[in-house]
Amino acid sequence: MLIKDINRMKEVIKGVKKEGKTIGFVPTMGYLHEGHLSLIRCSKRDNDITVVSIFVNPIQFGQNEDLDRYPRDLERDEKLCRQEGVDYIFVPSAEQMYPEGFSTYVQVEELTGGLCGAFRPGHFKGVTTVVTKLFNIVQPDRAYFGEKDYQQLAVVKKMVKDLNMNLEVVGCPIVREKDGLAMSSRNKYLSPKERESAVALYKALVRAKESFEKGINSVEELKKIMEETIISYPEVNEIQYIEIVDPDTLKPKNVAEEGDVVALAVFVGNTRLIDNIRL
Amino acid sequence: MLIKDINRMKEVIKGVKKEGKTIGFVPTMGYLHEGHLSLIRCSKRDNDITVVSIFVNPIQFGQNEDLDRYPRDLERDEKLCRQEGVDYIFVPSAEQMYPEGFSTYVQVEELTGGLCGAFRPGHFKGVTTVVTKLFNIVQPDRAYFGEKDYQQLAVVKKMVKDLNMNLEVVGCPIVREKDGLAMSSRNKYLSPKERESAVALYKALVRAKESFEKGINSVEELKKIMEETIISYPEVNEIQYIEIVDPDTLKPKNVAEEGDVVALAVFVGNTRLIDNIRL
Repeated sequence: MLIKDINRMKEVIKGVKKEGKTIGFVPTMGYLHEGHLSLIRCSKRDNDITVVSIFVNPIQFGQNEDLDRYPRDLERDEKLCRQEGVDYIFVPSAEQMYPEGFSTYVQVEELTGGLCGAFRPGHFKGVTTVVTKLFNIVQPDRAYFGEKDYQQLAVVKKMVKDLNMNLEVVGCPIVREKDGLAMSSRNKYLSPKERESAVALYKALVRAKESFEKGINSVEELKKIMEETIISYPEVNEIQYIEIVDPDTLKPKNVAEEGDVVALAVFVGNTRLIDNIRL
Repeated sequence: MLIKDINRMKEVIKGVKKEGKTIGFVPTMGYLHEGHLSLIRCSKRDNDITVVSIFVNPIQFGQNEDLDRYPRDLERDEKLCRQEGVDYIFVPSAEQMYPEGFSTYVQVEELTGGLCGAFRPGHFKGVTTVVTKLFNIVQPDRAYFGEKDYQQLAVVKKMVKDLNMNLEVVGCPIVREKDGLAMSSRNKYLSPKERESAVALYKALVRAKESFEKGINSVEELKKIMEETIISYPEVNEIQYIEIVDPDTLKPKNVAEEGDVVALAVFVGNTRLIDNIRL
């Protein structure tokens, strides 16, 4: 069932809670792909009821980012959700989520300074604020986030812990295309040529992991190897960052250790793609 | 029953919820007075279960404020709560509320710039953060705040609305001593002489209201009348602010209207006291 109104969603949730059923929640910005569907399947497995939200959250986009052209296809999303057996699709309007005079924000002050946070000021503040609102509306027992947005997952986990929220945040593995490209709604932006070069991120991550496993633990050296790999793809325009960070603190390392996260953001054509791998 | 551990409190709340009982919540910093007790009585009247928290929240105090000397008397508070029939007294430690690495804050960006917010930078950020944590732990149906801290009440109401929190914030009238001094834990700081002068705030508010009712609606004039009244009390050291504001936006007015809030902060000796009245 598709629900647009916040109060209606709250009423439905109240009823579900009264029946003692558990609620799994998959917050998305829509234009669903196999990555989202894997989250839905995890939620279906763990909970009595699954709620998917579709909301392109304006306050997590920067002024020069792609809010306006972010891909949308509610009809297709709805069909996919039905196929997966989603119980409720929650599609609030920006007007109802952020009425005039809206002025309360949730911010995780650690974890958000590096990686994507360094290049997208205000992004994570927008994410934690909307996620708090959605959590309060849907009141899930468990919420599912993809590991592709590793920093987002870490930040949301931290927020839930710090603010004593009553749910478990579950991270799910990255789902990849056959050639290794991480699934993302933004892959739609890629021209056929760019799509070929987009595998650069994954290839670089795999080379870093292989090099690490062969004994190279200097982050400088690993970064160099990754850069070499990436720039060999013709449609790559810019490497925004490559970092090897502690999986919990997200602090950059000089010497890589098992379990560290290798994360990167790369512009392929004009499309900014991110990906990561655990060492 | 007194509960110190956050997880224990959550377990108890889970049980209460399972029984379908409603929860009223009175967050306090302890050293309870008749003002607090009036909140407890409202909560008892409206809800099946009443929880009182006692927590002197370090992050809402500024560096030069009175965190260390803030009055504490848990034994007396516990006795008062028992007398009033409080079901659970929640007394978390600062260490458990703010473990090392704590870094998530909730901030209402409007409403907090003027009045007390102008003189206590970070104060309301500390308030909204701790209140969010306490709301998540206690999960009340209704939470009770005194109208003495008018700005705090407005800010908490705004936060609950903006973040779609699942509770009603109830404001309760100021409780006053016989001479009109608003009840406050900080009144304990006053020497006998200062205590006599502390009535200055209430006297000024009453004079403002009377003057308004006689037809004076110039805020400048009303402020002058209040200042005259206040400085006639010998132990008054400083008027920090006198404002007449819109009850919803808290924006300062030039021309007073019915329903506006007259609010002030005054140092009597070294003790900062606040009070307000509705026109």
